[in-house]
Amino acid sequence: MPAPSVTLADIEAAARRIAGIAVETPLIESPALNERLGARVLIKLETLQRVGAFKFRGAYNRLFQLDVGARRRGVVAFSSGNHAQGVALAARLLGIPALIVMPSDAPEVKVAATLGYGAEVHRYDRLTESREAIAAAIASERGAVVVPAFDDPHIIAGQGTVGLELARQAAAVGAHLDLALAPVSGGGLLAGLSIALKAQAPDVEIWGVEPAGFDDLRQSLEAGRRVAITPPGRSLCDALESPVPGELTFPILQRNLAGAVAVTDAEAAEAMRYAFGALKLVVEPGGSAGLAALLAGRVEVASRTVGLVLSGGNVDPELFARVIRGEL
Amino acid sequence: MPAPSVTLADIEAAARRIAGIAVETPLIESPALNERLGARVLIKLETLQRVGAFKFRGAYNRLFQLDVGARRRGVVAFSSGNHAQGVALAARLLGIPALIVMPSDAPEVKVAATLGYGAEVHRYDRLTESREAIAAAIASERGAVVVPAFDDPHIIAGQGTVGLELARQAAAVGAHLDLALAPVSGGGLLAGLSIALKAQAPDVEIWGVEPAGFDDLRQSLEAGRRVAITPPGRSLCDALESPVPGELTFPILQRNLAGAVAVTDAEAAEAMRYAFGALKLVVEPGGSAGLAALLAGRVEVASRTVGLVLSGGNVDPELFARVIRGEL
Repeated sequence: MPAPSVTLADIEAAARRIAGIAVETPLIESPALNERLGARVLIKLETLQRVGAFKFRGAYNRLFQLDVGARRRGVVAFSSGNHAQGVALAARLLGIPALIVMPSDAPEVKVAATLGYGAEVHRYDRLTESREAIAAAIASERGAVVVPAFDDPHIIAGQGTVGLELARQAAAVGAHLDLALAPVSGGGLLAGLSIALKAQAPDVEIWGVEPAGFDDLRQSLEAGRRVAITPPGRSLCDALESPVPGELTFPILQRNLAGAVAVTDAEAAEAMRYAFGALKLVVEPGGSAGLAALLAGRVEVASRTVGLVLSGGNVDPELFARVIRGEL
Repeated sequence: MPAPSVTLADIEAAARRIAGIAVETPLIESPALNERLGARVLIKLETLQRVGAFKFRGAYNRLFQLDVGARRRGVVAFSSGNHAQGVALAARLLGIPALIVMPSDAPEVKVAATLGYGAEVHRYDRLTESREAIAAAIASERGAVVVPAFDDPHIIAGQGTVGLELARQAAAVGAHLDLALAPVSGGGLLAGLSIALKAQAPDVEIWGVEPAGFDDLRQSLEAGRRVAITPPGRSLCDALESPVPGELTFPILQRNLAGAVAVTDAEAAEAMRYAFGALKLVVEPGGSAGLAALLAGRVEVASRTVGLVLSGGNVDPELFARVIRGEL
């Protein structure tokens, strides 16, 4: 069976499903950032999306399409935090019971928000238990549907609405994107974004940004096949720790990407401080990866027009305080 | 001599002068905030304005209209921070020398930014020295123009562009404002905003929000004349400590406002935490006053459409860290 493909039409259909439910997030520009980089950077604020991250888009698009019986039996997902919140809120809005499997060391702000949206949360130990096995067991017992974080055409199409909006909003301010950057973990956002952008501007150069040590996408693109890395420990970017590109997302990324670059924890923290001090935005470590790559000069942007996705803003106050005080 | 009046036409002229120079800041909506208040709140992000506060608008509009000779002789301003930065950046962009008189206890982030924009900074002791006298002496010595923070028709017209944009952006999303709130100190923003909004929707109810203990506007509105308060000490809202409404701004506010309400330091801090956690926005204490009034229930908004200005986001990391950790 060939892998289901995701098309611009799928993304446009997703956009109609989430219209009036998801936030059409603003595309902003910072003269200070433009001046610093010698480029024009259009910043897509997915930090202002419902649940504080783009993940709501895909989750809602996926859950909306469940039939009545499946809605009654409920959904199960596993996630360190943002997908958890996206599924929990989409489920609440659609009246679907949801259970989320979350690691015991997930950021507290993400766990609390997931519970706040009315989902059950099942904690597990990242080192000794398999979240896939736990989710599968619960789903099988309840007849519930497992909602993947990225490897699902409806999830990819939902996240792709970020790209549709970005293209339309850029055109509205007379900008033609030479380049786009987004954080990447499993690749749902970047796959959807790249389909939406390439369909409208085939020459746009698209880059994924990973945490150093979790550069499975870069390695996979070089190898021409999906390569799994052995995690070197934890990354500050808790949302970007996937060890291998998705089965569905990788072929899309392979086709559409110029490449992938990596940023260190220190560079992500520096980007968070820049977002705080110069942009007045709260960005979580993983959400700041694209900005970190720009500030660290990982991608050549001089005199170019760049679309940048700030993908999430869910960060524990204690961690944020340490970052802005320069302790991280 | 009658006080110069400010008209919608003046604000529209200011909008043309700042077009492409100032940021047209986004108007956003948070489903979470709407749900909490049972209202529709359209949030104008002046935190994303150049220099991190609306003050750039008025400063640029004022400085742009100086003639060649005046531009050469330079400008002087006194300000605890945001007007300082607004004047400093506008002066740099227009090639005008600027000197800013700032209190020795101004937030470091505001002093550093003012210096960063290339202005000279003269520090003074808030308790023993008069900033007006210092600024007047320096201006007289240099033949420089003193740029007031609020009591100037061009400053008021410049700040009024916030209201023009707010009205246009609200209309673009099909909203009719029942109510608008903004922080108020000397009254430049609120005066300009109220002229712009009332000209287009005479029935809109406009409220100013002051820090508790600095409720000179509320007292003045009640007395029907400008009342000066004796500052009870410092407010967390360092940008809102003016002890008396402006001579030009007060008659405008008297004509256009439904009233003024006050928020405590604790309520301002709570609003900053809400902006951090739920909105993913960095807002300084004074900039959060309007949000604080909404969260504290100071103004009746149930089932209404509200325009809310978040007026600034310049806050020292140390203070922000203490606020989000709940230490303030």
